[in-house]
Amino acid sequence: MNAEIYKLSELIDKDLAEDNLSEQDKDELEKQIKPLLSENSVVLAQANPICGNLKYNAQKAKKWIDWANRLGVQAIIFPEGFLMGIPFGDYLVKFPHIVEDCREWLEVLAEYTKNTKVIIGFVEKNNSNKGKPYYNSVAVLSNGRIEKIIRKTISSDYLQINTDKYFENVPADKKNNILEIDNKKSAIVIGECTDVEQVLDAGEEFQLDFLINCSADITRTGKEFLKHNIFSQISKKYSAAFVYVNQVGASDSLSYDGASRVYDKNGNVIYRAKSYEEQFFIVDPSDNYGKIYPLPNGIELANDYSKTFSLDYEFDLERTYKTIIQSIREYFKKSGFKHACLGLSGGLDSTVCAVLLADALGKENVFGISMPSKLTSSESKNDAKDLADNLGIHFLEIPIKGIFDATRETFDTLFSQMESKWDFRYKQSYTNDNIQARARANILWGISNEFDKCLTIATSDKSEAYMGYATINGDMSGGFAPIADVTKTKLFALAKWLNKNREIKNAIPQSIIEKRPGAELAINPKTGKPLLAEEALMPYEFLDEVIWRVENLHQTINDMLDVEFVYERENSLSKEQKTDWLEKFFRRMSYSQYKWTIMAPAPIVDAHSINKAEYSQPIIASGIDYKKTSIEYKKQILNN
Amino acid sequence: MNAEIYKLSELIDKDLAEDNLSEQDKDELEKQIKPLLSENSVVLAQANPICGNLKYNAQKAKKWIDWANRLGVQAIIFPEGFLMGIPFGDYLVKFPHIVEDCREWLEVLAEYTKNTKVIIGFVEKNNSNKGKPYYNSVAVLSNGRIEKIIRKTISSDYLQINTDKYFENVPADKKNNILEIDNKKSAIVIGECTDVEQVLDAGEEFQLDFLINCSADITRTGKEFLKHNIFSQISKKYSAAFVYVNQVGASDSLSYDGASRVYDKNGNVIYRAKSYEEQFFIVDPSDNYGKIYPLPNGIELANDYSKTFSLDYEFDLERTYKTIIQSIREYFKKSGFKHACLGLSGGLDSTVCAVLLADALGKENVFGISMPSKLTSSESKNDAKDLADNLGIHFLEIPIKGIFDATRETFDTLFSQMESKWDFRYKQSYTNDNIQARARANILWGISNEFDKCLTIATSDKSEAYMGYATINGDMSGGFAPIADVTKTKLFALAKWLNKNREIKNAIPQSIIEKRPGAELAINPKTGKPLLAEEALMPYEFLDEVIWRVENLHQTINDMLDVEFVYERENSLSKEQKTDWLEKFFRRMSYSQYKWTIMAPAPIVDAHSINKAEYSQPIIASGIDYKKTSIEYKKQILNN
Repeated sequence: MNAEIYKLSELIDKDLAEDNLSEQDKDELEKQIKPLLSENSVVLAQANPICGNLKYNAQKAKKWIDWANRLGVQAIIFPEGFLMGIPFGDYLVKFPHIVEDCREWLEVLAEYTKNTKVIIGFVEKNNSNKGKPYYNSVAVLSNGRIEKIIRKTISSDYLQINTDKYFENVPADKKNNILEIDNKKSAIVIGECTDVEQVLDAGEEFQLDFLINCSADITRTGKEFLKHNIFSQISKKYSAAFVYVNQVGASDSLSYDGASRVYDKNGNVIYRAKSYEEQFFIVDPSDNYGKIYPLPNGIELANDYSKTFSLDYEFDLERTYKTIIQSIREYFKKSGFKHACLGLSGGLDSTVCAVLLADALGKENVFGISMPSKLTSSESKNDAKDLADNLGIHFLEIPIKGIFDATRETFDTLFSQMESKWDFRYKQSYTNDNIQARARANILWGISNEFDKCLTIATSDKSEAYMGYATINGDMSGGFAPIADVTKTKLFALAKWLNKNREIKNAIPQSIIEKRPGAELAINPKTGKPLLAEEALMPYEFLDEVIWRVENLHQTINDMLDVEFVYERENSLSKEQKTDWLEKFFRRMSYSQYKWTIMAPAPIVDAHSINKAEYSQPIIASGIDYKKTSIEYKKQILNN
Repeated sequence: MNAEIYKLSELIDKDLAEDNLSEQDKDELEKQIKPLLSENSVVLAQANPICGNLKYNAQKAKKWIDWANRLGVQAIIFPEGFLMGIPFGDYLVKFPHIVEDCREWLEVLAEYTKNTKVIIGFVEKNNSNKGKPYYNSVAVLSNGRIEKIIRKTISSDYLQINTDKYFENVPADKKNNILEIDNKKSAIVIGECTDVEQVLDAGEEFQLDFLINCSADITRTGKEFLKHNIFSQISKKYSAAFVYVNQVGASDSLSYDGASRVYDKNGNVIYRAKSYEEQFFIVDPSDNYGKIYPLPNGIELANDYSKTFSLDYEFDLERTYKTIIQSIREYFKKSGFKHACLGLSGGLDSTVCAVLLADALGKENVFGISMPSKLTSSESKNDAKDLADNLGIHFLEIPIKGIFDATRETFDTLFSQMESKWDFRYKQSYTNDNIQARARANILWGISNEFDKCLTIATSDKSEAYMGYATINGDMSGGFAPIADVTKTKLFALAKWLNKNREIKNAIPQSIIEKRPGAELAINPKTGKPLLAEEALMPYEFLDEVIWRVENLHQTINDMLDVEFVYERENSLSKEQKTDWLEKFFRRMSYSQYKWTIMAPAPIVDAHSINKAEYSQPIIASGIDYKKTSIEYKKQILNN
């Protein structure tokens, strides 16, 4: 494909996003592009739908199809489920008219099709009255009609985000998936990378010219590596070009990274679209040269990610950054918010959140509020102010003393009366810590109530979420939680990366990156200084490796006692201390389930997460034994 | 079965719950019961497991099996999944050692079995490396070994609580489900009532003597009626006695009502266990007489519930009450809480919650706090106090003025500085309303921080949850939400029912039942009086019928415009006003999704709910069109 075409098609992308071209402009552009197209040109419609908003999705599809018709390409291929918008939700069951409407939008859309085949995902009713109520389908539209419908065959459920409750899967047989264009046979497979091979392996053998995969593949640590390997192998195995069309954009917690692509029959990438951007991407799968846009930096290094823990996160930082930026931007846009307010404590979590928000929403749309108490050090206050200045976001300092004192006074009156009736008042409590955290959250929600389209940000990170080390209605509360799937050690790496890679260097004061994290809510009686998080929990290097081992290797306490942690290479650690930390981890995790269920929406970033969009566990299941127990132990228990 | 046996077996129930019998007592009891048993006696083990707590569940099973062995009955049948405990959670995938442990507990348990067959649910690994990782299975244990394993065949997913992501379902074929006892053939079917028929219909025809259904069936409006009809028809169709063993107890939001039972081959109930209680229930399915414990009052009247809306909730109130009581009790017990605190506003929601808490936890364990602001009427304050006195719960009044004023002062300082940088401050806002609601929630969470094992209660009801008519970090926040699945009109009926049916009559002051609901957070400028909820929303009779039509009939705005509401029979309602209310309903519902995701755990009571344990929808899916649109409309949209 002529390289010139990619400069010109950027004008199409702009027109699709902004409707900025007149008919005359379009004719002009068409005239420039057409001669550059090869005979077998196809458009990968890497587009961003809104779940359930059929009108929006159909209008968008129509605009893209119009451009494809104009250029007279062979086909335009949309992602999985495009007309309904992925992820699906239970509204499919509760409001079935939406599925009828989806079918009707498809039919009306078909009327606008010409010779150019339109391959587009939608949700189809299962009229057989047997099995689940719907199919997750792809329609092939051309010459004014629905030419063919292909139904999803397998759901590999790689993400544990279950759609089996809505969708009947038809038996895998590649014959059902065949589409012919110009006497060339393609198989269209719907779903994630791990589904594709199973479908192609099933049914009678015959030669395919192309493989087409309509997908909505969420991004996660290690996923690109997995995906690339599978696709490359498949194209070699079937000796056919492999065309992959991925969704872009985000929905609540799920982020789709685009990077749609074509592999040749030898397993080499010959085209690749942009990551994290909509793109009207013109390719010719029968050609040998194509435009290959870069992936996030270093992501191809992720090869042993799922096998070895390392504190070197470099390979995943650009992807992490872009995922969170896209997620914030999309959540705000799709739910009607423009502005964000957050507390700036001078600590790492709120600092990284502030940078991400400034980049996602524009610095003028972010308000950082420093809300010191008497435990807040002047260093923290200065760090918060310096950060805001460096970023150019709005900033104010407002002490919480007034609210704290009034609350404390109310509590003193109340509790002293209560304890005459309830004799189980704690001698020591976290009440003062929590008054501070809640006073701050109330101020932020007050701002959200008072200023138009302003959303409160929760700054909890993943390490603390695992430990339940956050206050209900306090620092864990907010309308969106940008870093809830980023562990603390990765956040330190991300902070350094931001200082190096953003246009304005070193926005984050070095002192924030260097200081050991602490909430400044209580004094450690042992040191007489504000309690550090690691004193209350355990070293973050250790904690984050436990999380990694749980999520990636599914290890038990026993398994982890048997291996050397990265932390142990640098620090001496007794078996007692290690056992103690591991038990503390699982104990705290067991009692954090409730907090997990009330977390704000947060981008899923890691290979696995505790985001409630994908992980759920009954709160009362706190008696799970995270040690593997022996048969002898069990006999002994039942013998008593 | 001899009626005397049920008095005696209550002593077994007591021993199983409290371990109160010595070996000698047990011998004595055994001697009294044994002569009363018929040859084909079987025990329905209507027991209450804890999810994931294998040790607890295995120990419990062992105790029940010991008693069955002692009596020498033919079999003891446990509910579905008993050893793991239903509901299952994603820990099955994250911590696979739990499934290995489950198998080992089963093996160790088998060693204690004798002639009495033990039929017990567990989770089994799928070793084939094809399909989902586990089976939802039932084992038959006898004479020290695992005799047979039966795997779940179908998952009807009646509840939309999906377990398909963990479990491979084997093809339905009743031959696989056969168990022989004493030359009599039974088919064991795992799962809910709607699954059973599908399994029995599949595979070769042959005569069965008994049908056994191991279940964990959650209770909901209309479910008993559905269940009874299906079971009765099945036993007639196969001309075989039908034995149904249900779980009892609750887990977070899901409540299991027990009422295990036997139908004869003519479809008549011949035995039925207690509802909402564990019971070692001795039956003889070949006998014609058995003990039939009563169901919650009126529940058999639910026959047209899913077809017609009515404001007469009488048929469902005792079940509703018992479900919530069990849910509260179980949530507290299983998560380690003993005491509850809640705000008492003098309004209906907090009033009903207080009654339910007093009944579930004991009045001495409940603290009601009246937290008046300047908008709180003296009537409300008196009503709250009267209620607490009538119930005998603890009560204190503490004004929120101090916290309110300090917050207001902080906000005034902050907002006036902020508005010089952000020029989009609202002219009118809900900030003052929310300061009040949040001050109250902070006081309650403060109590929870300060007193041992004390949980904060959220008092939101279902009508308000649909409308998002509750303050984040305010009245919607709490550790448990007892009435979040009860609509306002049903709550009024429940309040009257409580006054009539509790031991202490009329605990709820009549004025609370008679006054129109209002949050007393703001003044209605039109009336100059505190804004009533119905002024902000719409009449509850209308609102609750919309909810019912959405949940049970899946109706759109168009559908609802075409039918007469109960409200319209008594009140004149213009088409404009009706349209306006319907559109308001769906608009508010669209923007309440975020609030639904951060609701506290709450018992599911109705036939359908928005409880996040069963309903999820992307927050950003606020562009769904709840009107069914026409083809013409769609053509017009795409033509522009």
